[in-house]
Amino acid sequence: MSAVILDGKACARQVRAEVKERAARLRKRGTAPKLGIVLAGDFAPSQIYVRSKQRAGERAGIEVEVARFPESVSRDELLGRVHDWNEDTSVHGVIVQLPLPGGLDSAEVLELLSPDKDVDGLTPTSLGRLVAGRPGFLPATPSGVVELLDRNGITASGRRVTIVGRSELVGKPLANILLLKGGPGDATVTVCHSRTRDLGASSREADILVAAVGRPKLVTGEMVKPGAVVVDVGINRTDDGLVGDVDFEAVKQKASAITPVPGGVGPMTVAMLLRNTVLAAEKQS
Amino acid sequence: MSAVILDGKACARQVRAEVKERAARLRKRGTAPKLGIVLAGDFAPSQIYVRSKQRAGERAGIEVEVARFPESVSRDELLGRVHDWNEDTSVHGVIVQLPLPGGLDSAEVLELLSPDKDVDGLTPTSLGRLVAGRPGFLPATPSGVVELLDRNGITASGRRVTIVGRSELVGKPLANILLLKGGPGDATVTVCHSRTRDLGASSREADILVAAVGRPKLVTGEMVKPGAVVVDVGINRTDDGLVGDVDFEAVKQKASAITPVPGGVGPMTVAMLLRNTVLAAEKQS
Repeated sequence: MSAVILDGKACARQVRAEVKERAARLRKRGTAPKLGIVLAGDFAPSQIYVRSKQRAGERAGIEVEVARFPESVSRDELLGRVHDWNEDTSVHGVIVQLPLPGGLDSAEVLELLSPDKDVDGLTPTSLGRLVAGRPGFLPATPSGVVELLDRNGITASGRRVTIVGRSELVGKPLANILLLKGGPGDATVTVCHSRTRDLGASSREADILVAAVGRPKLVTGEMVKPGAVVVDVGINRTDDGLVGDVDFEAVKQKASAITPVPGGVGPMTVAMLLRNTVLAAEKQS
Repeated sequence: MSAVILDGKACARQVRAEVKERAARLRKRGTAPKLGIVLAGDFAPSQIYVRSKQRAGERAGIEVEVARFPESVSRDELLGRVHDWNEDTSVHGVIVQLPLPGGLDSAEVLELLSPDKDVDGLTPTSLGRLVAGRPGFLPATPSGVVELLDRNGITASGRRVTIVGRSELVGKPLANILLLKGGPGDATVTVCHSRTRDLGASSREADILVAAVGRPKLVTGEMVKPGAVVVDVGINRTDDGLVGDVDFEAVKQKASAITPVPGGVGPMTVAMLLRNTVLAAEKQS
């Protein structure tokens, strides 16, 4: 048996096409959807991510303004920019590219951002609304995971999902999404991490296994139940190039479906960010 | 074998005694800790809960002011009271007793409450800070569960915890607390609920099993691994009196430790609320 490959690139293309239509409808009604990105310092991966968000946004008909600050930017300058964009009705979504330069408190910056413009879904208010089951923006990567499953006809409802990794960006919000009543939720969810004593025991229980820790090939073939769906959120730069947290070649022999790296969850993240932005513009217009 | 009974009454008494000392220290420094409770309508259990919070607060040296509103209270009156207490420096903690009378949106009222005074830990900001692993107030019942375990020398770190129930008040925040790095966290956590297909399979994996659904005797002896710790958060009024979600007589033969109902988690909830209030007063003074 060899697993179905869950094509994140194709799925992200669909999402972006839908975003483009919605953006066009908004412009006809006089609203030009716009995303503001706060980018501080010169951390190379951040430069790359921001450029790809900018390009994808512009292709989908969303204007993207990047506010660039030097490594030496002060707390007040960053807070000032977030405050200005909170007030600026021509900007519908705002993201703060993380990490910020050392010494700056990203939590403080995020807490200032208006939840109505928090298209990354990372402010405490957005995360709290998620836990409370209230409407709000969902973080891009975890919502990309559930979207990718959904568009491939895979439902988590009633099934056992094991998430390896408890990060604030992926593992914990994903667990909370999968526990929602109805919609993408209704799963029985287990969260594992570095302190889990028997990772294999938990991973082998999973109908759907999600790896999000950032350790190359952590998930081996023996850790997967035959027929499980395996989602790889890891992106690790190694001597062999970009690899995920899953030993793809071994696991695809056992899984019924698997996401590749690259080309799996990665492209979904940017697409979901754009969808949140067009949704923000629709709500504000 | 018969399980050790985890005495919530005794444990809550310890917590309240510590709160009393801290409150006395605060008063010596000129701050009289004060809790404001918004109580709307005449739902009988709410009247009882509020009275017990008031009594426990006053015994611990915390002034408690109850703002009572009729069933017909308007949204603006409630929001106005929360707003006033947000601004009032003599009030350190505020809780909104739920449920509110029909037609009133409790989420809207909670979103207005200052996170610095949110001693029930139920505002979106507090829940989001919990998910993000940032300092903030933890909800009283789930933090009562971890406190009760901790004071009985039971650690969740590295162990499998299964939580039955995914409510916003207990199940979901408790899962997020147990997933924190360090402290009361580092557990491998599974959350089950009404859509879980094989509840027994998940419950039998648990080193620590927490039941929080509100269904009398849902957890039977067969659902518990021998030697597990069982925490019963349920409070159900039945013809047999107050019973929990756990079949106490059967389960205590298998568990190594178990909380009774009443006298287990219940008393901890009020004690943790008072501890949050004195903490709020310390931070604000």
